[in-house]
Amino acid sequence: MEMTLQSNVVQPLLTDRYQISMAYAYWKNGKHEQESTFDLFFRKNPFGGEYTLFAGLEECLKFVQNYKFQKPDIDYLHKILPNYTEEEFYDYLSTIDMTDIKIYAVPEGSVVFPQIPLLRVEGSILKAQLLETTLLTLINYASLVATNAARLREVAGPNTRLYEFGLRRAQGPDGGLSASKYCYLGGFHGTSNVLAGKLYGIPIEGNHIHSYVSAFQNLDELKIRVLPDRITGASCPFVESCEKYLDELGPILKISPNQTNKGELAAFISYAISFPSNFSALVDTYNVIQSGVPNFLAVALSLHECNYKAVGIRLDSGDLAYLSMKVRANLTEIARKFNIPYIEHMTIVANNNINEDTLISLEKQGHSINAFGIGRHLVTCEKQPALGCVYKLVELNGIPRIKVSHDIEKITIPGRKSLYRLYDSGGEAICDLMTRFDEPAPTANSRLLCQHPFSETKRAYVTPSSVKCMHRLYWANGNIQHPLQTWDEVRLYAEQQIKMLRKDHRRNLNPTPYKVSVSNSLYLFLHELWLSSVPISEFA
Amino acid sequence: MEMTLQSNVVQPLLTDRYQISMAYAYWKNGKHEQESTFDLFFRKNPFGGEYTLFAGLEECLKFVQNYKFQKPDIDYLHKILPNYTEEEFYDYLSTIDMTDIKIYAVPEGSVVFPQIPLLRVEGSILKAQLLETTLLTLINYASLVATNAARLREVAGPNTRLYEFGLRRAQGPDGGLSASKYCYLGGFHGTSNVLAGKLYGIPIEGNHIHSYVSAFQNLDELKIRVLPDRITGASCPFVESCEKYLDELGPILKISPNQTNKGELAAFISYAISFPSNFSALVDTYNVIQSGVPNFLAVALSLHECNYKAVGIRLDSGDLAYLSMKVRANLTEIARKFNIPYIEHMTIVANNNINEDTLISLEKQGHSINAFGIGRHLVTCEKQPALGCVYKLVELNGIPRIKVSHDIEKITIPGRKSLYRLYDSGGEAICDLMTRFDEPAPTANSRLLCQHPFSETKRAYVTPSSVKCMHRLYWANGNIQHPLQTWDEVRLYAEQQIKMLRKDHRRNLNPTPYKVSVSNSLYLFLHELWLSSVPISEFA
Repeated sequence: MEMTLQSNVVQPLLTDRYQISMAYAYWKNGKHEQESTFDLFFRKNPFGGEYTLFAGLEECLKFVQNYKFQKPDIDYLHKILPNYTEEEFYDYLSTIDMTDIKIYAVPEGSVVFPQIPLLRVEGSILKAQLLETTLLTLINYASLVATNAARLREVAGPNTRLYEFGLRRAQGPDGGLSASKYCYLGGFHGTSNVLAGKLYGIPIEGNHIHSYVSAFQNLDELKIRVLPDRITGASCPFVESCEKYLDELGPILKISPNQTNKGELAAFISYAISFPSNFSALVDTYNVIQSGVPNFLAVALSLHECNYKAVGIRLDSGDLAYLSMKVRANLTEIARKFNIPYIEHMTIVANNNINEDTLISLEKQGHSINAFGIGRHLVTCEKQPALGCVYKLVELNGIPRIKVSHDIEKITIPGRKSLYRLYDSGGEAICDLMTRFDEPAPTANSRLLCQHPFSETKRAYVTPSSVKCMHRLYWANGNIQHPLQTWDEVRLYAEQQIKMLRKDHRRNLNPTPYKVSVSNSLYLFLHELWLSSVPISEFA
Repeated sequence: MEMTLQSNVVQPLLTDRYQISMAYAYWKNGKHEQESTFDLFFRKNPFGGEYTLFAGLEECLKFVQNYKFQKPDIDYLHKILPNYTEEEFYDYLSTIDMTDIKIYAVPEGSVVFPQIPLLRVEGSILKAQLLETTLLTLINYASLVATNAARLREVAGPNTRLYEFGLRRAQGPDGGLSASKYCYLGGFHGTSNVLAGKLYGIPIEGNHIHSYVSAFQNLDELKIRVLPDRITGASCPFVESCEKYLDELGPILKISPNQTNKGELAAFISYAISFPSNFSALVDTYNVIQSGVPNFLAVALSLHECNYKAVGIRLDSGDLAYLSMKVRANLTEIARKFNIPYIEHMTIVANNNINEDTLISLEKQGHSINAFGIGRHLVTCEKQPALGCVYKLVELNGIPRIKVSHDIEKITIPGRKSLYRLYDSGGEAICDLMTRFDEPAPTANSRLLCQHPFSETKRAYVTPSSVKCMHRLYWANGNIQHPLQTWDEVRLYAEQQIKMLRKDHRRNLNPTPYKVSVSNSLYLFLHELWLSSVPISEFA
């Protein structure tokens, strides 16, 4: 990963107020340098699924690397903290950086599951605590939208291309950028967002929209009326040629050539003159079948005569299953009548309120769409707009800490832990296993007891063919410890990670739960600490 | 409004790819300087409501003010556009700014409705079109979340304070900042987001969280054990005093003092020593009634003895109706027993999955909560995570343009339009009225025919007591035309705007639709253009 532009708002003050209050209270009570361990994890996979793609790590590391309170930040804190706050605290804050913090994490793009620590942050409690909110902010949405993208990728199948078109529906500028970046990670092919293309090297896509089409009224207004032949350079009478082909198309497509919208035709011609090798047309401004497609084909045939190949059409409204098949039928017919085979296979792009359910429904109905643009549902993650990552203290001064709760799933698993993924002989993941940090690592081909963390009867013996330690040390001694990968490498890794997951864990509806287990030692330890932390109620 | 820090990612490349392609096509065909008018509007109020708060204007103006392609931007465009793109186009792009664009808008914080132009952008089509995506990105989420906040404000009633706690659940860093800024606009009292406090002058709130409580194990570890009296400065034996009060509280609260969690008590004491005048405690880490509240009260009574007043408690889980009333009963009892009246009225803050429905349900059940912190539901706008603002060409070279559609509500209202709000004698809004730009303005106390834009039978005569023109010229000649208001002024304006709306339009469930109408002249004009744009289908 290269370190790319990060929004200038990612800075130490981008945090919750209580982090500052707690920092002062730790400092005031001489507790601020106590050695702590925090786990960052979530409790439930999003979208009713059984897996999550982990994302946001690069941005976290960058934030930690640049962590520094500036003078105006300290001035602002002076204003908001009580006037009896000791001056030495501000002096202390001014000096801190994250040099002596350690961050272990699973690699960006990993498939991850509930309860497992995605990040383990170690170091003085004041500093480790100060990181909480910003790390969560950087990981929650990144992981959520990457997972959303991966699920759409799974549903769309390998032959359909997917583009993220959601900038205008995102939560502001870098909500939009994050969407583009992390949807690409999740398997999308590109985005409409130009800045995302520039910053992250993601392919970008897009031609024109309805405004362009409705900006033209008729053919008279076209100032350029000729096009140089791609090979000979000879000037073709392009407008004339389009009119001629439109007349020829009438009887074949059973439409009346003089009823196609001539503003639309003018728009298509002008666009083709600008992008003769990359001509695509949005065909639904007036009427797809009566106007858009005939106008497009008239221009495509004229381009062919000048030795260019048009790319295809885009549908932005209407019944996408019906329209795409009808358009494909037209393309096929024209390809045969004019003996130009590639016309049959031109790209049909569609975007209109696409989500997982509409993709599944389109697959069932049958359609002829080659690529989808997805905006709102993708970037807002409408089905579940937040991933509930949390950041919990699990050890202090070498003593494990637990947060108990009436809700079992809200109990934290105490202490520093190691995380392993166990694989079968086919290379598919069997389950994840957390152990106490000082336990020996599990080894391949040996029988392990894997227990559900909270339910004593749920347990199984597993003999893995291979075992992988999932945590790597990413940040220590003030430096990033791993050469970071390019974004394309991260994307490829994510794709491989998903493939290592059994298909029944990945399916859209009622997937099989993937098991996250703890070692027997961790199980006993967790339950002992849990019992000792809860007072026995007294009913009088 | 002051111009405050804007994320560095708000720049001309933060746009959709097709905007760049279209810019080239306009330029290549010599059409780029044609005078255009675009309307920015939405088609449906969010959350099943009947009003929307307009927000994001300040950021739009700032974006327009700074609009400039930088050298690296142009270099990047060279890479993505076809190699036959003419070099003069890049030269042209390098020179443009938004000096000769005009932007009319309704003031930030206005109550707005479907179909009405929130912004009217006038100028050369190439430039006005280039602004589309970024303006939408800046307005969509800002308006959505401000509206969400206003609705929660309405439901919570005037005596309850509301705080935005959603940074970690937002779509990344400036999703979080936007949420804080625009929830304040919508009537929230503050945020937990420190950077939002610094940038926008919003009050910020927050004390400590569970990690702080679980970081303490027992009273022995407290290094500071005394507190200076607020008035005399004499050193009070604070830890001892807390222990003494806890023993006294046992029989009164019917709890066993040695069963309260002593790590929790240590955490509360250390926090009170750090913030003696601002002590609040999160009381649900172990058990609210058996542990949290008795520990809190022991500290509060000790503070009282040293002439400080504790502030209150916070609940982060459990049954908020039941617990808040139970806590209030405890506070009341202790206030009376110790004859310290303010204890009865201490603040109870609650935050646990709060949304419109839970607020309504809490009101019905009865509760004793003074303030709510709201995170996920507020910032993700879970009930409807996107507002569908669009940006449509309505006039070109003085000729009105229309976008027709099979869906009536997707048809655009063509031409430059004026926008008026008509009020009754009580100062409440009756309806909005759009007219053609060259029509005379409607006047107070004269009878006007107001028509539904698409349905010929829906029309009414209105005799308004006052009429307000809603559009102001905000941007012209390269300058912001109005001195912008402070954010607190904008917030106050929004509050007044909501008050001018009849209560039945504002109610949570099945509100009365607010009418947006057109003048008879605009109605006739719209329908004539509409008919002439749609070809008559031919069934053979």
